Amino acid sequence: MSPEWWTRDDLRRGTDGRLIFAGHDVAALAAEHDRPLFLYNGARIRANAARLRAALAVSGCAHRLYYAMKCNRFPPLLRMLAAEGGIGIDICSPDEMDLAIACGFAPGDISFTGTAVAPRDLDRLLARPDLHINCDSLAQIRMIGERTPGRTIGIRVNPGLGTGYGDSARLTYAGERTTKFGIYREQWADALGLAARYGLTVSTIHFHVGCGYLSQQLDAWDAAVGEAASFLADLPQATTVNIGGGLGLPHRAGEPPLDLARWSAIIARHFGGRGLTVAVEPGDYLVKDAGLLLLSVVWVERKRDTLFVAVDGGFNLHPEPAHYDLPCEPVACTVREPDPSRWHAVTVAGNINEALDLWAEDHPMPPLREGDRIALINAGGYGSAMSSNHCMRGDFVELLI
Amino acid sequence: MSPEWWTRDDLRRGTDGRLIFAGHDVAALAAEHDRPLFLYNGARIRANAARLRAALAVSGCAHRLYYAMKCNRFPPLLRMLAAEGGIGIDICSPDEMDLAIACGFAPGDISFTGTAVAPRDLDRLLARPDLHINCDSLAQIRMIGERTPGRTIGIRVNPGLGTGYGDSARLTYAGERTTKFGIYREQWADALGLAARYGLTVSTIHFHVGCGYLSQQLDAWDAAVGEAASFLADLPQATTVNIGGGLGLPHRAGEPPLDLARWSAIIARHFGGRGLTVAVEPGDYLVKDAGLLLLSVVWVERKRDTLFVAVDGGFNLHPEPAHYDLPCEPVACTVREPDPSRWHAVTVAGNINEALDLWAEDHPMPPLREGDRIALINAGGYGSAMSSNHCMRGDFVELLI
Repeated sequence: MSPEWWTRDDLRRGTDGRLIFAGHDVAALAAEHDRPLFLYNGARIRANAARLRAALAVSGCAHRLYYAMKCNRFPPLLRMLAAEGGIGIDICSPDEMDLAIACGFAPGDISFTGTAVAPRDLDRLLARPDLHINCDSLAQIRMIGERTPGRTIGIRVNPGLGTGYGDSARLTYAGERTTKFGIYREQWADALGLAARYGLTVSTIHFHVGCGYLSQQLDAWDAAVGEAASFLADLPQATTVNIGGGLGLPHRAGEPPLDLARWSAIIARHFGGRGLTVAVEPGDYLVKDAGLLLLSVVWVERKRDTLFVAVDGGFNLHPEPAHYDLPCEPVACTVREPDPSRWHAVTVAGNINEALDLWAEDHPMPPLREGDRIALINAGGYGSAMSSNHCMRGDFVELLI
Repeated sequence: MSPEWWTRDDLRRGTDGRLIFAGHDVAALAAEHDRPLFLYNGARIRANAARLRAALAVSGCAHRLYYAMKCNRFPPLLRMLAAEGGIGIDICSPDEMDLAIACGFAPGDISFTGTAVAPRDLDRLLARPDLHINCDSLAQIRMIGERTPGRTIGIRVNPGLGTGYGDSARLTYAGERTTKFGIYREQWADALGLAARYGLTVSTIHFHVGCGYLSQQLDAWDAAVGEAASFLADLPQATTVNIGGGLGLPHRAGEPPLDLARWSAIIARHFGGRGLTVAVEPGDYLVKDAGLLLLSVVWVERKRDTLFVAVDGGFNLHPEPAHYDLPCEPVACTVREPDPSRWHAVTVAGNINEALDLWAEDHPMPPLREGDRIALINAGGYGSAMSSNHCMRGDFVELLI
């Protein structure tokens, strides 16, 4: 297994050992900024979207992508997607709605699916007649019915089955444990009754069963989709099935990418030939591998038995490695020692005063020295969007290439 | 065990079942704001500091508190502590230094202990001649020596033993696993050699072995302190031993508070009669139980087999319950059913689209309805300071009473 398993056309080593991303020398770009830097490759995002649309086309179903904005709301990235056309946006809060509109998305291209949606949230959302809202609770159906009887809505259902990256419980949004999301079969009749009482048209079934699923989770995903599809039997007037997001990507060496042909075949089997539009809400799948987080090496030093590489940014800039077991693997931007058998296992540590603030442990890297840059790969999703100013170490720059 | 085990003078039920905090009706205060609200009780913070100082006085050692600013940097709270006098401040980044000074702390009352400290950080820190800096790496000693030879410094040591709340590995900062913090015994001679080479005077030994320790961790803490104290043998000129922070407080029913008499006796045994000043860096111990996070109930609804209480704020406002297993127990601000045997077990869920966004599971609460307020207790530390704008749900108000 190559230690540089992530190599692809737009992310690779130049002949001089320098990391090239989107045609740029990463270390040179990073050197223009004296702080942590997120770099996003717009072409990679578009390529990810095109691959997904091609797979959906094979299913034979009409389809629509809604980018999950919570994943990365960097305005130039949102403006690029809005200008691209053909991609809608999935939002979960009124402030996200306002930002989406400010970045060029028409209300009719916005799909809202939130949780614990407050009356004051609904007052803002419902002011947009063309905004589509998927309801995730009986209360939300009722509150919409009281405010805007006759509106067309979707209902998020919970099939009671789920899956997620590495079968992690914290990334599974439906399953054995009852979650806060959606309407379960046990409350389904109540939901339909409420919708009928207020004359709400239910155009859409929505479900989202977990985050980061890969090919080995597709059997579980298939079962969950089948269970969710069974709700459609009570909704002959439905026009759309929104299958949520959660499509994963490899985070570790040896993980094959999601088998989109099989994924598409599952969609075709459950929803093909029914005149339904299949909506998908990819977040990470579009932007995560299109982003790097660039940090500077502050020192390299042995502590007791461990060689540490300290860098000038911590987990507050990207919480997934520390809190979700979703690594952003550190990669040297300049490799002076091309023979990986002479690399050293290091622990890469951030600048936050917490023991868990480590980017990688026992991770082979070429020799590094103060001032070198490292790139954290797969940093394009749930990084800047979830960042905090913990320890007042929250400063960073973002660039869309 | 009372379900309201947290009751104390400044946080209690009024005779009408309403929650009273710092003399205020909490629900009434919360109703003045239509968004999540952090409330801090300045008197409780001062009482916590006074209790700690009284315990230190019993040790017979000269002593000094440095409030750990990373815990809560709300400016009115910092200004209150600065105006109080006699309390210094512990910081870990240059931006924290600037904020501390802006809030009234003199550089001589500021102690810096950071990790992965970058050259650009040191350039800002060293511009303050009276700022005390504890070095946590050989590189940091060298970089300070190169820039300001002859300066007085401290050295953070790592005793190789540690402890933390519930013996949690993620809250233990020294122990079996090698951490990024401090100078281990194996590198100690190198550290002293570097200090000598640049004429740096080492006035202070610093250590911090874990977060949230309570009485049942005091044996482990005692052992770690003993190991750290052994470093003093090589520093006859040292004037100060900084024992870090990490003093815990009860988070769950049945947890007794930290036995300060025993804690003080451990300090006296290791450091008494040596002419040393004992510095302590409490964060949570001063502010955590002095803070509430007030949220509104959005709906109460059964999903499958579970009764959910949805509220208008999520784990992005306070990540400790979701990520550190440090609960902020939800408490009803108004109790209409005084008999706890008639309360229901509920799951309290926030408004973030993540399955882990739960404030409590299977937690007994009185009957609640839409618009009721709940208070998350022990929300004064590492809440607002670590909050993010995830899902653009990051808006809140803070008030110091």
